[in-house]
Amino acid sequence: MTSRLVDLRRRLHARPELGFTEIETAATVVGILAPVADAVALGRDVSRPVTAAGMPTPGELALARRRALDHGTPDDLVDLLGDGHTGVVVTIKGTRPGPVTALRFDLDALPLSEASTESHLPFREGFASVHDGVMHACGHDGHIAIGVELGLRLAADRDFAGEVRLVFQPAEEGVRGALTMLAAGVTNDVRRMIGLHLGLGLPLGTVAASVHGIMATEKWTVVMTGQSAHASLAPQEGRHAVLGAATATLGLHTLPQIAGAVTRLNVGALHGGTAANIVPDRAELLVELRADSTVALEHLRERARAVIAGASDSHGLDWLVELSGRAAAVSCDDAEVDAMLAAAERVPGVIQAMRAAPMSASDDVTLLMENVQGNGGTATLVLVGAGSPAPHHHPLFDLDERCLPLAVNWLEAALRAPLADQR
Amino acid sequence: MTSRLVDLRRRLHARPELGFTEIETAATVVGILAPVADAVALGRDVSRPVTAAGMPTPGELALARRRALDHGTPDDLVDLLGDGHTGVVVTIKGTRPGPVTALRFDLDALPLSEASTESHLPFREGFASVHDGVMHACGHDGHIAIGVELGLRLAADRDFAGEVRLVFQPAEEGVRGALTMLAAGVTNDVRRMIGLHLGLGLPLGTVAASVHGIMATEKWTVVMTGQSAHASLAPQEGRHAVLGAATATLGLHTLPQIAGAVTRLNVGALHGGTAANIVPDRAELLVELRADSTVALEHLRERARAVIAGASDSHGLDWLVELSGRAAAVSCDDAEVDAMLAAAERVPGVIQAMRAAPMSASDDVTLLMENVQGNGGTATLVLVGAGSPAPHHHPLFDLDERCLPLAVNWLEAALRAPLADQR
Amino acid sequence: MTSRLVDLRRRLHARPELGFTEIETAATVVGILAPVADAVALGRDVSRPVTAAGMPTPGELALARRRALDHGTPDDLVDLLGDGHTGVVVTIKGTRPGPVTALRFDLDALPLSEASTESHLPFREGFASVHDGVMHACGHDGHIAIGVELGLRLAADRDFAGEVRLVFQPAEEGVRGALTMLAAGVTNDVRRMIGLHLGLGLPLGTVAASVHGIMATEKWTVVMTGQSAHASLAPQEGRHAVLGAATATLGLHTLPQIAGAVTRLNVGALHGGTAANIVPDRAELLVELRADSTVALEHLRERARAVIAGASDSHGLDWLVELSGRAAAVSCDDAEVDAMLAAAERVPGVIQAMRAAPMSASDDVTLLMENVQGNGGTATLVLVGAGSPAPHHHPLFDLDERCLPLAVNWLEAALRAPLADQR
Amino acid sequence: MTSRLVDLRRRLHARPELGFTEIETAATVVGILAPVADAVALGRDVSRPVTAAGMPTPGELALARRRALDHGTPDDLVDLLGDGHTGVVVTIKGTRPGPVTALRFDLDALPLSEASTESHLPFREGFASVHDGVMHACGHDGHIAIGVELGLRLAADRDFAGEVRLVFQPAEEGVRGALTMLAAGVTNDVRRMIGLHLGLGLPLGTVAASVHGIMATEKWTVVMTGQSAHASLAPQEGRHAVLGAATATLGLHTLPQIAGAVTRLNVGALHGGTAANIVPDRAELLVELRADSTVALEHLRERARAVIAGASDSHGLDWLVELSGRAAAVSCDDAEVDAMLAAAERVPGVIQAMRAAPMSASDDVTLLMENVQGNGGTATLVLVGAGSPAPHHHPLFDLDERCLPLAVNWLEAALRAPLADQR
Repeated sequence: MTSRLVDLRRRLHARPELGFTEIETAATVVGILAPVADAVALGRDVSRPVTAAGMPTPGELALARRRALDHGTPDDLVDLLGDGHTGVVVTIKGTRPGPVTALRFDLDALPLSEASTESHLPFREGFASVHDGVMHACGHDGHIAIGVELGLRLAADRDFAGEVRLVFQPAEEGVRGALTMLAAGVTNDVRRMIGLHLGLGLPLGTVAASVHGIMATEKWTVVMTGQSAHASLAPQEGRHAVLGAATATLGLHTLPQIAGAVTRLNVGALHGGTAANIVPDRAELLVELRADSTVALEHLRERARAVIAGASDSHGLDWLVELSGRAAAVSCDDAEVDAMLAAAERVPGVIQAMRAAPMSASDDVTLLMENVQGNGGTATLVLVGAGSPAPHHHPLFDLDERCLPLAVNWLEAALRAPLADQR
Repeated sequence: MTSRLVDLRRRLHARPELGFTEIETAATVVGILAPVADAVALGRDVSRPVTAAGMPTPGELALARRRALDHGTPDDLVDLLGDGHTGVVVTIKGTRPGPVTALRFDLDALPLSEASTESHLPFREGFASVHDGVMHACGHDGHIAIGVELGLRLAADRDFAGEVRLVFQPAEEGVRGALTMLAAGVTNDVRRMIGLHLGLGLPLGTVAASVHGIMATEKWTVVMTGQSAHASLAPQEGRHAVLGAATATLGLHTLPQIAGAVTRLNVGALHGGTAANIVPDRAELLVELRADSTVALEHLRERARAVIAGASDSHGLDWLVELSGRAAAVSCDDAEVDAMLAAAERVPGVIQAMRAAPMSASDDVTLLMENVQGNGGTATLVLVGAGSPAPHHHPLFDLDERCLPLAVNWLEAALRAPLADQR
Repeated sequence: MTSRLVDLRRRLHARPELGFTEIETAATVVGILAPVADAVALGRDVSRPVTAAGMPTPGELALARRRALDHGTPDDLVDLLGDGHTGVVVTIKGTRPGPVTALRFDLDALPLSEASTESHLPFREGFASVHDGVMHACGHDGHIAIGVELGLRLAADRDFAGEVRLVFQPAEEGVRGALTMLAAGVTNDVRRMIGLHLGLGLPLGTVAASVHGIMATEKWTVVMTGQSAHASLAPQEGRHAVLGAATATLGLHTLPQIAGAVTRLNVGALHGGTAANIVPDRAELLVELRADSTVALEHLRERARAVIAGASDSHGLDWLVELSGRAAAVSCDDAEVDAMLAAAERVPGVIQAMRAAPMSASDDVTLLMENVQGNGGTATLVLVGAGSPAPHHHPLFDLDERCLPLAVNWLEAALRAPLADQR
Repeated sequence: MTSRLVDLRRRLHARPELGFTEIETAATVVGILAPVADAVALGRDVSRPVTAAGMPTPGELALARRRALDHGTPDDLVDLLGDGHTGVVVTIKGTRPGPVTALRFDLDALPLSEASTESHLPFREGFASVHDGVMHACGHDGHIAIGVELGLRLAADRDFAGEVRLVFQPAEEGVRGALTMLAAGVTNDVRRMIGLHLGLGLPLGTVAASVHGIMATEKWTVVMTGQSAHASLAPQEGRHAVLGAATATLGLHTLPQIAGAVTRLNVGALHGGTAANIVPDRAELLVELRADSTVALEHLRERARAVIAGASDSHGLDWLVELSGRAAAVSCDDAEVDAMLAAAERVPGVIQAMRAAPMSASDDVTLLMENVQGNGGTATLVLVGAGSPAPHHHPLFDLDERCLPLAVNWLEAALRAPLADQR
C-alpha cells in the first residue's frame, strides 16, 4: 500500500496545477476510482460558477487543457473538467446502514517555483514539478493521494456504515473552490464532515483531532470605475478612480480595531490607470478581511462596504465588490473529536494524539463544515504531522511520506468504527 | 464739508465693531441721517437670519449691547440693532422722476490690534481704536463717512432723479452680511447698484469705474457627527468623526484643477475631539471655495459636497454644510462704467480715471449687484485710491483722508447727472 | 476606626480636585499624617516637571490655590503644593530591620458632574461634590482614606519590619502623575511596591492579589507647525498644518495590526486652523497608543513616530511629540502575590481571595512597579471589591464603604507579617 | 516634389512605430538622405540612455527588430537602431559661411487603432496603418516627410549660409526622446533652433511663427519598495507599499494651487501588490506635473518630491523617482519670429501668417530650444495649419497633404534668406 500511495503522491507532485485548472489531477483521481466506486460525479455536476473573480482566464484554461491532453488525459475528461470546474465527488457505500460521511481533499498547487537543490528530496529523487512556477508546496498532493488510497481500500472492503463521499475540491488556495461546490450542494445531505491537513508544523507521529482559532475570511475584488479625461486639458471632466481607490485603501485600514476579537484587514493590491497624462477611469483592489468570529467578520464587512461606497461617491465613481474567496470560523464538534481520538489509538505510528491544535490560518473546508453543522450534522478538521523541512508555501516544502499511510489508516479506522464509537 | 467727513470717519475709527455687532456704528448713521431722510429702516426690517454660522454668540452680542449703551447709544436703537441685525437702509428722494439707485457701504471692522506707534497717524492724532483687538483696517470707517456725507448732501439739495437708497451693510468681512440683507429683499426693486471700495493699492487721485477678476466665493462650516466610544474598550462602537473629517480634508484638496478657470479650495480649520482615549463624535471644518466664474464655483460646490458626503458615509457619520458666507463673480455693466467715467471728469482731484482695475479678492456687494442685474438693472463696483501706507488688514493700515471728499464728490456727481448721461 | 475612615473619605469626596490641582487634598493628608510620621516630603521635593502637556494652565492653578485658601488650607502648604506638584510622600519606620516597602495612593478626581438623585448615597447623605463638574468617580477618595488610616495605624504601633513609604500621587487619570514622581526618584530605593485599586467590578468581600492583562499605554500631544498664507492670494506660500495632521491621522490608524498582541491606537482629537481663508499653520493631535506588551507598544511607538514625521515632511511642517501620559504592562511577582494571599486569610470580611483578576484598563502605578522591579525588587497591584452600584467614571459611581476597613486591614496584615511570609 | 513628399508621408503613415522602436522609420530617413548628406549620425552616437522608465521592454524591441527586418530594413541599420536609440542627425552644409541651424522632426506614432471607414482618406486610399493598434495620429509622418524633402532640396542646392542639422528625434509622445538626444549633446553647438508642428487646429494656409502658453512638464515613474509579509500571520513585519503609494497619491493631488500660474498634477496610475493576503512590497506611480512657467514647475517638483519622500518614510518604504519625460516652457525669440514671418511672405499658399498661436499642450522640442537659448542662440516653434478633419490623437486624424509642400517651402525660404534677414 505505501508504495502505491507514494507513487501517486509523487506523480501528482511532478504535475502540479493551479486552482480551477486541476484537469489532469482530477482526471487522475477519476481514472483510479471510477472503476471501483458506486458513483463518480464531476465538473459542472458538482460545481457552480459563483464569481468570475477567482477564475482563470480563457487563455489560462486553454493552456491547461492543452497540457492535460499532451500528458495523455482522455479527451472526454478534459471536456468535462476543462472550463474551470475541476471538482470530483466519489461515492462508496458500506454494507451497514448509516449516514453520509464526507471527507474533503483539495487538489490545487501554488504559483511558486520549486527548489532545485540536492537537499530537496523531490528534486533529488526526480519528481519535482515539471511546470515552471507551479508547485505543490502545501501538501495537497499528499491529501489527494490519501483520499484516493482511502477510496480504494473502502471499495475493496465494504464493511463500514452508511456512505462515504470523497470530495476532491479545486482551488483551496485563495479559499475559492469550496464556494463553487457548496453552491452545487455537494454536502447538503452530509451528516459527518471531516477535513484533513498535513503538516502545519506538527512532527511526524503527532495528530490533532481538531483545530481552534481558525479565522473566518473573505477575499474581495473591488472594482471602481470613473471617467477618463485629459489630465491637463480637462481634468475636471474626469472622475479619478485612483484617487477613490487610494481613499478607500486608507479608510479600510482604519477599521480592524475590534475589542475582544482578533481581526485582520489588508488591501493586498491596488491597480489602476495606464498613463501619467490621463485621469484614470478604473481601479481594482484586492482586499482580505479576517476575524476569529463570524460576528466580528460581519462587522468588518459592513464597515468595509461603507468605506468603499463612501470613497467611491466622494470621487464620483461606480463600485462593485466581488467575493472571490470565503472561509468560515467554525468550531469542531466534540462527538467528532472524540471519535477521531478513539480511532487514533488504533493507528500504528501515532505517537501523540492532541485533542486540538491551533490553526491561525484559514481553510475553506470550513464552509462545508458550517453547511453540515447548519443542517444538524457534525464536523471536524484534523491534522496529521508531516515532519516538513520547511514551512508551507516555501520552495523547499516537502512531506515525510510516512505521514501518508498513517493518515489513511487513521481515517479508515474512524470510518470503520461502529457508529456508537463514532458519535 | 471735509472737516465734517473727517470728524465722522475718526469717530468711527476709534470705536470699531466686528461683523453683526456694529450697534453703535449703525446708531450713529441713524442719528445723523434720520432727521433729514425720507425713510430709515433698520434691524430685522432690512435683514433676515440666514445661517447661524457667522453670527456672534449671545455673549458677544450682550457685550456689544452693553458697550454701546455705555457709550451713550439710545436704548431703543440698541434694542432694534442689538440682536445681530445691524443693517440700516436710508431713503432720499429726488425732485426729478427716475429709478431707484442703491449704494452699499459696509459697517464692520476686523479682529486685529491697531498699531500704537507714532508713525501711525490714528495713534498720533488720538483716534486709534479704543477696543482692544478690533480695528478698522479695511477702510470701512471711510466708507460709512462717505455714505453719511453723501446722504446729507443729497437731502440738502434734492435736485436729482429718482430715489437714492443708501445701504449700510454689516459683516462684509467673511462675506456674510449681504446674504442677510439680500434675504430681506432690500435691493429687489433697485435699477442701479453701485459699490465702493477705498484703497486696494490705488494712489490718491486715481479712481476706477469698475473691477475685473473678482472671485466668487463660498464659505462653509461643515459639521460631521458620529458616535463616541472608549477607544480601548470598545473602539468598534465608535464612529470616528476625526477620521471622516481628515478623509474629507484630503479629498477636498484634490478638487480645484479646472481647465480654463482660476479656482481655490482651502480647508482652513479642522476641529474635532476632546481626549486621546475617546473616539471623537464631532468634527467641524471651515472650508472656502473660490472661482473666477460662477460655473467653476458650481462645479467645485457639487464636487465638494460629494466628497464630504462620501467621507462621512465611509465612517458612518452624519454631516451638515452650513453656508456662512458668499460672494459672486459679477461683471460690471458698461452703462454704469461709462456714467462713472463721465462723472469723474467733473471731480476735482481726480488725476487718473481707469475704466477697470483688477480685484482678485472677494466682496459680497457682488451679491447685491447680481440681484439687481438679475432683475434687469445695471451695476458697478468702483474704487477710489487712498494712498494707504500699509496693505489692507494690516495694523498700520490707514487712509489719506483727502480721498473722502473726492469719493463723495464723485458719487454725488454721478447721481446728479442727467439720466441720459447716467446710462 | 471605621468612622474615622468613612469621615475622611466623605470629606475628600465632597471636595474633589483634578489632576495636579489636588492642593486641598494633599494638604489634608499632610495635616493628618505629619504629626505622627517620621518624615513627610511634598511638592517639588517628590515631583519633577516632565512635560507641560498634561499640566493645568496658570489660570486653573490660580483658581485651585484660591479655592484651597478659601477652604482654610494653610498658606504655607498652598505655596508648596500650588504649582502643579501636589505629591506627598510619608515615611513611617518600623522597629524591626527590613527593606523599604512603598504603597501608592492616587489623589485626583475626574471632570464629571456628580449625580444629584436620591438614589445616589453621596447626594442623599450630603457629601456629594461641591465642585461643579468635578467628581471622585473612580474611588480615589477611598484610596486616600485607606492610605491615611494605614499611616495612622502603623505610626501608632511600630511593630513591623523596615520602612513603609506612603506615596500619595497626583493625576493618575490620564496616567500622568507617576511620571513626575518617578522623575523625582521616590521609588528608587524601594524593594516592595504595592498598588491598590478599589472596585473594578469585584463584589464586596472579594479581593485579588494581582492583576493580569493590564495595558501599557502612552498619551501623546503632537504639534505640527507650518506656515500660514492667504488661501487665495498665495496658497503656495503656505505649509498646511491641517493637511499634514489629516494625513498623519489616517496613517496612524493603519498601524495597530500586530499578530499575537492586543493593541489600540486612537487619534482622539485634531485641532488646527482658525479661518476658512487662511492656510493653517498649526495643528495639534491627541494620540493614544496601547498594547498588552511592552514590545508591541514599542513597535507601535516607533511606527507612529515615523508616520508623524513622514506626514509632516510631506507638507513641509515641523513636528513635536510630547509625552503627556504613560503606563506600563507589568507582571506581578509571585512572592508578593503569595504574601498578599497569605495576609488575606487573616482579614475578616474577605470572602474570596483571587490570585489574579483581569484588568484591561491602564494605571500608572505600573511605572513605579516597573521601576522597583528593574532595581531587583518585587511588586503587585491588588484589587479590593467595593460593590459599586455603577461603573467607574459614571455619575452614579460609589463605594460600599465597608470595603475601606477591609482594605486597611489587608494591607496592614501584609505589612506586619514576618519577613519570611512576605516573600 | 509634391508627389515625392506625399508618397513618403503615406509610406510612413502605413508603417507607424511607437517611441524608441522607430527602426524602419529611421532607416528610411537614412536610406534617402545618406547618399546626399555631408554627414549622418545615428543610434547611440546621437542618443544616450537617460532612464529605463520610458524605454520599450526587450520583448517589444525584439518584435520591432523582427518586423523591420521582415519589411526589408538592412541588417546593419537594424543593429544600429534596434536597441531603443532610433535618433538620426543629418548634416548638410551650405556654400556661404554661417552658424549651425537645427530643425527637429519627430519620428514616433501613437498606441491607437486607426479608423477603417470610407470617410477616412488613409483607409480609402489604402495607406492606413498595417500595424494593429499603432497609428500616426499626430502628424509626425508629415513632419518626417517634410524633414526629408527639405534635406533633399538643401543638398541639391547648397546656396545657403552655415550648416543645417536635421534632427530626427524618437519618442516625442510622452516627451521622452528629446532627453536622450540632449544627453548626447546634438544641439550643444547650435545657434538657431526651429521646431515645427502641423495642425493644432489651424486651417490650411495659416501658419504661426511662434507659440505661447506652452506648458513645461515632467513625467515621473515613482517606485516605492517596502517589505512583504503574511497579512494575517505577521502584518507588523510588512512595510505596506500600497498604503504609502495611496498616501502619496492623495498628498500629491493637494499641491497644484499656485497663485498666478496655470498648473496641473496627475497621478495617472498606481500599481502595487499581487494578492489579497500579502502585505505588498512594491508600488509604482505614474505622475505628471505641468506648469506654464519654469518657476511654478520647480515649485511643484520640490513639493511633490517632499510628499513622496514623506509618504514613503511614514510607511517605512524606500522610494525612487525616475524622470521618464520632460518638456520646458520656453519663449520664442523675436529674431526668429521676425525671420519666419519675413519668409512666410515669400511662400505661395500662405493665407495668414500669425506672429504667435496658443499651444496649451507640451512638446519636448522645447528642451532643445532651451538648450540652444541657454548657449546664447535663438529658437522658435512654428505651426503649419493642416485642415485636419479630427483632433490630434483621434482615430480619424489626418492631414490635408497640401500642407506638406507649404511647410517645406516655408522652412527652405527661411534657411536660404540672407543672414541679416534671418536675425
